[in-house]
Parts: sequence; structure tokens; C-alpha cells
Amino acid sequence: MMVVGMVFPLHADEGMWLFSKPPVEQVKERHDFEITPEWLEHLRKSSVRFGGGSGSFVSPDGLILTNHHVGAGTIERLSTTEKDYLKDGFYAENLEDELPCPGMELNVLMSITDVTERVNAAVGDDLTADEAVAARREVIAEIEREAGKESGLNCEVVAMYRGGQYHLYQFQRYSEVKLVFAPDARAAAFGGDPDNFEYPRYCLDFCFFRAYQDGKPAKTPHFLKWKEAGAEEGELTFVSGHPGRTNRSMTLAQMESMRDRQFPQGLERMYRVEALLRAWSDRDLENARRAKQSLVGTQNGRKASQARLDGLLDPAFMDRKRESEKALRGVMRADERWRAADEAHDEIARLLGEGAEISVRERMWEGGEAFGTRFFGMARTLVRVAEESGKPDGERLPEYQESGRDSLEHGLFSERPIHLDFETLWLGDSLTVMCGKLGVDDPLVKKVLDGKSPRERAVEWVQGTELGDVKVRRRLYEGGMEAIRESGDPLIRLALLVDGEARKWREKGDAISEGISQAHRKIAEARFAMEGDAVYPDANFTLRLSYGLVRGYPAPDGVAAFTTFQGMQERHEGQKGIAPFDLSDEWKEKAGAIDAGVRLNFVSDHDITGGNSGSPMVNRDGELVGLIFDSNAPGLVSDFGYNGGRGRAVSVHPAGMLAVMRSVYQTERLLKELGF
Amino acid sequence: MMVVGMVFPLHADEGMWLFSKPPVEQVKERHDFEITPEWLEHLRKSSVRFGGGSGSFVSPDGLILTNHHVGAGTIERLSTTEKDYLKDGFYAENLEDELPCPGMELNVLMSITDVTERVNAAVGDDLTADEAVAARREVIAEIEREAGKESGLNCEVVAMYRGGQYHLYQFQRYSEVKLVFAPDARAAAFGGDPDNFEYPRYCLDFCFFRAYQDGKPAKTPHFLKWKEAGAEEGELTFVSGHPGRTNRSMTLAQMESMRDRQFPQGLERMYRVEALLRAWSDRDLENARRAKQSLVGTQNGRKASQARLDGLLDPAFMDRKRESEKALRGVMRADERWRAADEAHDEIARLLGEGAEISVRERMWEGGEAFGTRFFGMARTLVRVAEESGKPDGERLPEYQESGRDSLEHGLFSERPIHLDFETLWLGDSLTVMCGKLGVDDPLVKKVLDGKSPRERAVEWVQGTELGDVKVRRRLYEGGMEAIRESGDPLIRLALLVDGEARKWREKGDAISEGISQAHRKIAEARFAMEGDAVYPDANFTLRLSYGLVRGYPAPDGVAAFTTFQGMQERHEGQKGIAPFDLSDEWKEKAGAIDAGVRLNFVSDHDITGGNSGSPMVNRDGELVGLIFDSNAPGLVSDFGYNGGRGRAVSVHPAGMLAVMRSVYQTERLLKELGF
Repeated sequence: MMVVGMVFPLHADEGMWLFSKPPVEQVKERHDFEITPEWLEHLRKSSVRFGGGSGSFVSPDGLILTNHHVGAGTIERLSTTEKDYLKDGFYAENLEDELPCPGMELNVLMSITDVTERVNAAVGDDLTADEAVAARREVIAEIEREAGKESGLNCEVVAMYRGGQYHLYQFQRYSEVKLVFAPDARAAAFGGDPDNFEYPRYCLDFCFFRAYQDGKPAKTPHFLKWKEAGAEEGELTFVSGHPGRTNRSMTLAQMESMRDRQFPQGLERMYRVEALLRAWSDRDLENARRAKQSLVGTQNGRKASQARLDGLLDPAFMDRKRESEKALRGVMRADERWRAADEAHDEIARLLGEGAEISVRERMWEGGEAFGTRFFGMARTLVRVAEESGKPDGERLPEYQESGRDSLEHGLFSERPIHLDFETLWLGDSLTVMCGKLGVDDPLVKKVLDGKSPRERAVEWVQGTELGDVKVRRRLYEGGMEAIRESGDPLIRLALLVDGEARKWREKGDAISEGISQAHRKIAEARFAMEGDAVYPDANFTLRLSYGLVRGYPAPDGVAAFTTFQGMQERHEGQKGIAPFDLSDEWKEKAGAIDAGVRLNFVSDHDITGGNSGSPMVNRDGELVGLIFDSNAPGLVSDFGYNGGRGRAVSVHPAGMLAVMRSVYQTERLLKELGF
Repeated sequence: MMVVGMVFPLHADEGMWLFSKPPVEQVKERHDFEITPEWLEHLRKSSVRFGGGSGSFVSPDGLILTNHHVGAGTIERLSTTEKDYLKDGFYAENLEDELPCPGMELNVLMSITDVTERVNAAVGDDLTADEAVAARREVIAEIEREAGKESGLNCEVVAMYRGGQYHLYQFQRYSEVKLVFAPDARAAAFGGDPDNFEYPRYCLDFCFFRAYQDGKPAKTPHFLKWKEAGAEEGELTFVSGHPGRTNRSMTLAQMESMRDRQFPQGLERMYRVEALLRAWSDRDLENARRAKQSLVGTQNGRKASQARLDGLLDPAFMDRKRESEKALRGVMRADERWRAADEAHDEIARLLGEGAEISVRERMWEGGEAFGTRFFGMARTLVRVAEESGKPDGERLPEYQESGRDSLEHGLFSERPIHLDFETLWLGDSLTVMCGKLGVDDPLVKKVLDGKSPRERAVEWVQGTELGDVKVRRRLYEGGMEAIRESGDPLIRLALLVDGEARKWREKGDAISEGISQAHRKIAEARFAMEGDAVYPDANFTLRLSYGLVRGYPAPDGVAAFTTFQGMQERHEGQKGIAPFDLSDEWKEKAGAIDAGVRLNFVSDHDITGGNSGSPMVNRDGELVGLIFDSNAPGLVSDFGYNGGRGRAVSVHPAGMLAVMRSVYQTERLLKELGF
């Protein structure tokens, strides 16, 4: 096994480390702190996995702290027309008042076992690729079943290093969960989209649930005690949570392709959609109401893409990637066994070049970007269902296989309202983009427009289609290919017209993707053979440990690490209390009692990503000193690599949470349970 | 001379006709109406030219009707902190109350004389190009001087058909003008930007001025009587006004280039700027206030560009152009004398291709799109002033010649406030675009970024520059090349770094433009030789006559021709009275007295463009039946050609104006003067 530092130099306090392979040496060397097995076990057993988020036990009686935005879906479902807990908040004065959350399931990681050998042993070298997949699936199911029977725990085998290792994760599952406390959404998400990914921030983005067992609060001897004073600037702290997905094993060519093509193209489209939604909203208040969610989503996506692109445009970031890849490939080239993995890098670059050539046509015809209307999606589905249903299940396009039939029907027969004027606007605009990208002399573009202008075509189609009627969709769905062929609906005719071309580009695109995956597998195998598990694997929603320092932004445009209630008040007043900078009447009445200097949010340089929301931050003594709730914009490049320079995790400060629990929400019972 | 119809078939009621060459035959044939010299003279002498707009006399005592938005600049200048006439409106109860408008100058066209022979005679065939320009300029000045001495009028020689003809226009000038009445801006511009270019509309976009002579109301025997009932759907009417610029003599290749490159590229940029301004505005109310004007301007530009692109994407529109060009070139090819003009079409297409290849670099480096900050503009000016001042005046870049020195200094030393956070945002974004368009491996991009990311560079430069201080700019301006070379200011260093490359692309771009102009001149000469003045020349702010019908939009998404006060009230309520759909308290109190069915705005298919704002519309009897104030979106393609299909002129209805003058503003004196 190679010395890892040579091949893959880690940057500063980088890393989303497995609890089974913690960064003991690095932390010892860099910060003179000894991560002991006991310290680690305590933190692990205090950590809670939410679906897509994180949390932690904060009392011996199953009390759980997480983000308000992690709990928001549940809180919304618990609300009624009389009681809007999302808007107004919720507090159970007594244990009996805690609100059951049906369907919610939380997991605590009890043990990790390496089962790689058993998995690999079951997959013989002489099997075909398909047989290997089946054999692997089978042995994994067997391991999970056996372990579950033995321990009574929730068992899951997870692939690490793209299959370099297989780990058995055993969880204590809590499926009886109740809501204990949530602040009102205005305080929790103060500043809304405009302040999202920015700093300074002022969010009380926290709430409490409680795990129950057999109708009683669960006994959770491992829980995190709060340190109200939090951590100081420059102090070493740890984050334990469930980062979702990272792509740090992408090759340099892939990152360059993201930087030079995918992000710029995606952004061009997002800017356009945003302007369109805004223009439509400005024309009519009702439009504005309807467009709000789409608009917020588009803006959020635009900000996130822009931030990731910014990260990839940082030459220092790309230089590190270039150097580490150069070193890695140097080692690969030097060893016969790994030469194919070296060459796989060039193969990926070549395939990306092919992909660039077809991407516009693939996006326009197969991706449907030329036809921005929900009617086209319906027509496409109806045409393809009819075509694909005639084939054996295994030969169909994946989204038309029987296993996905329910969700396909759910989407196709959804009664979500359609606004014809917006469909016309959006379709006309996307046909205009089609003309710009492919040229009006493209033969298929000509057929599509048939001598009309994009706007005319859009009006004609949206006024002429009957697909807005769910009964019509159902009739065509049930009528099969015959009904489709006989249909005079203009959108069905359109979907038929472009289907051949669309499938052609999709096939090419799929072949390129598959080629890239195969090349990647070669690289991953070689890397794992070379480095083993000395480096953390890409994030995959398993529990990870990050370490780092509480740290503001460096000059030239430095920002202090901590914000205070005074800052929040100033922001509120500066924006004249207009949403999303508004605060509840209760807040305005009572928050004055809080000392203006009390800390509210802070930033640190921990390596996190989506899924870490709600993660506890602890100090050397394992005390809770923060609650992760966001990343700043420069931190969003963490998909591709750690950015300790300006990337920051954003947390709620314990002093801030305690202050509002005391003064605004007056949650006496809860404060007592937390030890205050 | 050729029969015109063969070469250049006109479309329906197309045309911005010269008053010296009215469409007598066409109107007779199509609408069975005889345009008599008397009818025409009366309309001409009732028409008033505003700077960039139009108007008409509506009483024998010099009372002038125009658009509120034509008068808005003047109305704003007359306002004080106590009296905001723009916001609240203005009405002079008595003649003595009318408000003098210093600097305002109006012109009425008294005669048109063809002076082509005299101009051409003065320009000998043996002169060089420069000598010819000088000789032409001299004889024109001489004609204007002589005519002015003789008639006492304001004389101007205008080139038509790119110099195919020269006309002497003699104007009665009125430089003593007073404001008589203006409604409040909320009523005048009801619906603001969201409703701009759309229909239905509900704008009271009118106001009155009065021409004075020697301190007394001017005697204006030619004026338009109002017909309160207006014109009916389908009725023939005429518009007399001053359309500004059209480019209908563009070749097909040029229009295709606008459609396939210029508009899509421009729109991509506008969408981006709009999103940026919105995001910046959302972060801070003060930002929102500062960005408002830029945002409205960007949106307006985006809508207008999109509408023009829509027009060029209409295959029917382009087919007409293609056919007329084909016919024209066929005739040219058939005659030795005009063969060069035929070939000039290909030369233009070739040059456009060359232009397409350099356009990104020209825009980025010379156009400064890579450096979106006002600081770069300052630095560029300072660097170039220093460089260019060392050359003889005639050899300098035009904008650095002595004749433009005043306006250059005015711009450079402007104290208009600069917002550093926006400069950083905008600069960072434009550097990102630069990376996307040119690639991060471009040698000059590398030098510009110098190993930093776009955002880092933007922060560094905006924080490091001292050009925000007007004293620093003045010192560098006065210090010449030496001061520039010694300056360590990062923006000055940047402007120096890119100057060579920028100049290189500018030279290429200028050579291409000059080549296109020359080719165009050949075509124009040949066309004029073939067609003479049978077809109207491109618009050039001279008085023109358009004819057409009052007409709503055709199916499938038809809209009725007329709107009413009821429609306005519904729009106001539908938008909950939120700006720009708000109305004044006075309006709300008094407008209820107006019958809900009274007509307010209407559309017609007249051929108009920018500059026609404020044009009177008259019926066969020469009565005023409307006041042009806008074009709808499909009409904006009129730059390139007439769109009678869906293009519409939008007018205020006389009944609407009279109703509010009676009920809301109670302008008794004015109503009496108008004959009501």
C-alpha cells in the first residue's frame, strides 16, 4: 500500500471521515488532540440520522435537536387550517402535548463491520457483469438478513470507494417520534432566499423532536450536553452528520467540463427562466402567487450553480486538483497493473468531448428543452408508453419499466393546475431558444415550426391541445399505440414528430455516460488498490466526522465569525421588516429582553455538504457548541472538493437558541431538560 | 425607371411616406380615398415636431397635444420639492398660470424643396472621398443659410435614400413654449413596465403645451378639431408624425445576423444583468431603490429585443424579405450598371461572417464586457486620453478628438455615486462570463486573472482602486502618459494590460463596419437609380404620413380594438392597486362619474416606430380621432419591416381624454378651447 500523502495530498482540515476510520493522526498532528474510541463512540451514539438530514440527542430521554428546515416538512404536515405550526411555531408545554409524527423514522448508528471479503467471495471472477450484479445483491441481502436476526437492529450494507469496500451498518431505529418545539418560520428562516448562502446570517434554524419507545420517551444514555458559551474563534471543533453526495473522485477533465459547459449552459437557462417567471409575475398578482415557489426554486438553483461555478473558476482549487491527478496518474503509469486506469482518464476526456458535440441536440430534442410546456411532457410520456409497452420489460427505457409504472401514472394523471398563459409564454420562449441554438434552417426545426413563428406555434398548440383534460390523457394512455396514431392533438403529433431524433441523441448520450462510468470504475479500483481506505470515501449519506476551526472570512472582504441579536435587529429594521425580513408580533414584544450582544450564528471551516443540515458541532470535551444549518456560497464547491479558503459551514449558536427559548418562546420544561 | 411593384412589393398598409411624396394612388386604390394637396397641407401644418417625439396643434391659439411621456422630462424639470407635477399632475386654470418651459423648442414643417441637383452639382466627380464630404457639407450649409435669410424660417437639408436625394425642410420654429396641462403620472403611465408593449392597455398618456410668439399665444390657423367619438373598428385613418430610425434597407444577411447572433447574444446578457440587479435589490431595500431605474431600463430593453427577435423569427416576415431581395438582385444582375450592387449583397454576407468570428473578442476586450464596472470605463478613458492626445486630432479615435472633449470630461468627472458592493458583484460576474466565453486557458484571460478567481479579482480591484475619487481621476487626466505609467492603480494597470488586444479587435471591427457601409452605399445608389422615390425612404425623424385601419388582434388569441374605463378599473382592482397599477386619491374620488363604457385606448395597424409618440391620428375629414403613444410587442419589428399581421400602434382615445378632463381634472378652460 502506498503512502497516501504522496498521491492525494489533503488540504488543511479537509475530510468527511468514516467513524470506522477516523482522522486520529491528522488531528493529533495538526491540533494536538487525541480522538479516543470512547469519545468517538459517545459522539456516534449521540448522532441521529434523519431522511436527508442530521440531528443529535440532547437529553437522556430521547430529546433530539435538528434544523427547523429539516423538520419543516413534518411540521407542515402536522398543521391544520386552524393551527399553522410552520408559520406560528409549536411548543408542547407538557410531555403529553408532544405531537406524534406518523411516518417519521430516525436511525442511530450502533456498529460498523467490514464485510468486503464475504461480499467479494460471493462474486466469482468467472461471472458475467449481470451475474455479478445479481450475486452481489444476493449476498448483501443475506448479510443484512442474518445480522438483523442476530442483533435486532436495522441493518444496511453500504458500498464505499465505488465498491472497493462493503460495510455493514447497524442502526437502532426509532419509528415513534414526536414534535416537541419549533420556533416560527420567520425567525427560523429569517432573511429567506436573499440571505441564503450569504453571511452574516441571523437564523434560529432549530427545532426539537423526541424519540419514543413503547409509548415512553426513549432512554438515550449517549447525548450531547450544551455549552452555552459555545466555542471561541480559532477553536477546534467537530461535526458529526450525514453528508449526502460528493463527486470528489471526478477527473480533472470532468470538472473542467462542468466549469466550461454544464454550469454556464445551465445558468444561461436559469437566468432566462427567472426573468420569464418575474415578467409573468409582474403582469398579475395571481400569477405572482402561482409562480412564487418556482421562482424561489429557480433563484436558489441559480445561486447554488453560480457558487459552484465560482469555486471551479478558482485557479488555486483547480491547480490542487491538477496536481493531485498528475501525481496519481504518475504512480498509475509506473505500474503495469494500473496503466489502464491511467488511460481511463484520457478516455473520459475523449468521451466528454463527444458529449459536448451532441449535448445541445440531446438537451433540445430528448431533454425537451425546445418544448417548455408541461403538455409536451405529457405527450412524450403518452407516446413512449405506447411504444415501449410493446417491448419485453427488460428492453424498455428504464422509466417505462413495470416497476416504475405507479409513479409514471401518478405524474401523468396529476391534477396540478395548468396556467395556459404561462404555458404559452414558456413554450414560445423555449421554441425561440431552439431557433437560436439549432438555427432556423435545421431540418427538424423547420418541420417543428412549419412556417410559423415560435410565438404563433406556441399559441396554436396551447390553444389546440386537449391534454389539459385528465380524461383525455387517460383515454390516450389506455388506448395504446392505436389511439396515439389516430390522435390529432397537436402535442401528440409533435411528440411523434421528434421522437426518432430524440431517441437517437439519447442513445448516443447514454452510450457516452456508460463509457464514462466504466472508465471511472477502472480508476476507482486502481485507486483503492493503491490507497486503500487511508483517504475518506465520497459522501453517501453515511455518518461522517469533520474537524475544523471556528473562523470568519479572511481579508480583503473579511467578515467576523459571530453574529448577534443586535445584528438581526439592524437587518430587520434596515429592511423595514418587509418579508423575508419580518418577525412575529410575539418576537417583537419579547425579544427585547435578550441582550443585544448574545451570539446568534457563526461560521467555521468544516468540510460539509447537503445532508449535514442539523449536524451537531462539539468541542474537545464533546459538548454541543453549535448546530450546522447551511454552507456559504464559496463552500458549495464542496461537491468537487474542500474549500477551506473561503468556504464556511454556518451554524446556530447555542447561546442564541437558549436566549429565544427563555425570552421569546418561554419553554421552561425544555430548558430544564437541557440542564438550564 | 422601373415599375416599383416588381422590385419591392409593399405589404398591405405599409409605409412611412414623405409629405412631398404621399401614397395618393395606394390610398385611392386600396381605400377609395383621395388625398388632396389641401388636406395634406392642413395636416402637415397642424403637426408639431418635438425633440424625439411628435405632437399637433389642437386650437387656433397654439395649444398642442402630445404624450405625457414626451413631455415628462420637461414636466420633471419644472417640478420642485414642493410641487411634483410629474407625480401629481398640473393644470393652469388661467392663461397666466401656464408654466414657461425654458429650452423647449418645437418645429412645424412649412415647406419641402428638392435640392438634389444643386447638392450633386457642387460635388464634382473628380473629388476624393474626403473632398466630396467637405464639398457636400459646404453646399448644404450654403443652401440652409440662403433659404433661412430669404424665408426667415429654420432651414435644414436632409439626406434621403442614403444621399439619393437631398431635401430642404423649412420649419416655423417655436422656442417660447408653456405647459398647460398634464395628468398625474399614475394615470398617464398606468400599468408601467409590466403592461408596456402589451395590450389591452389603459393609459392616459397625454398632456398639453402651448406655443407662444412675442409673449402671446401663437396664432395657428391650422389645427386639428377633435372628434370625441373617435374612429370605428375597420375605419381608415392617418398618422402624421416623426418616426426616428428604421433599417428596412438592411440586406437579408444582415437581418439573419441580427436574428441568429446579435439579438440572442444581447438577450443572454440582458437576462443576466436583470437577475443580478434583482438579486442585489432583494438583499437590501436601499439597493432596490438604487437599482430601480437600471432595472426598469434593462427589462424594457429585454422586452424590446425579445419582441424584435420574435419578429425576425417569423418565417412569413423573413420570406417576404427574401423574395423582395431576390427580385431586386435579379434586376440588378440583369444590368451591367448594377452588377456591383448585386455583388455587394454577397460582400456584406462575407463581412458579417468575419464579424461573427471576432465579435466575442471585440465585445469582451474592446467593448469592455469582460470588466463590468464603471471603474474600468474610467480607467480606459484615462489610458486612452493619454495615448491619443499625443496624436494629431484627425488621427485619433473619434471619441478622443478635441470636438468631443467637453462631453468626455463631463462623463469622466461625473460625481454620480458608485456603490462598491454592486461594482464587485457586477465585475465578478462579468469576469465569470469572460472565462465562459474565452476559456480560462486564453493567454490574456490568464494574465487578467493572474492565478486568482473572478470573484477574488473583483474584490481585490474594487477595494484597491482609487478611481472612485474624482480628484484622483483629475490628477491622472492632467498628468498625461507619465502619470498613467507611474500609476499603481489596479484598474489603470488592467486598462493598460488589455489595451493592445482591445485596439486590435476594434480595428478589425471598424474595418468590417466600414466595408459593410461601402457595400450598402452601392446597393442604395443602384436602388435609387432603379426605383427613384416611388418607395418611402427609411425613417430619419422627418415628418411622415402613415395610413391604416383601427383593428384589434386576429385569432387565435384575438384582442378587441378598444379598451374602456371599466377595463382600467378591473385591472386596478385585480392588481389590488399596487404600483404600477395604483391611482391617485383624486382619481379614485372623481373617476366614478365617468361612464364605465367610455373608450380609453385602442389599436390600429399603422406603420410607426419610435419618434411617433405623440402623433395625431386623423380620419378622412382630418379630425383628431386618436393620439399614438406606443407600439405593441409584435409591432417593434418595424425597425426591419412593417408587420401588419399582429403589429399594432397603440393610441389614447379622444373620448378617454375628454372624460378625465371633465370629471377628474376639471379643466373647463381647456375643454372650452377644444370646443367642448
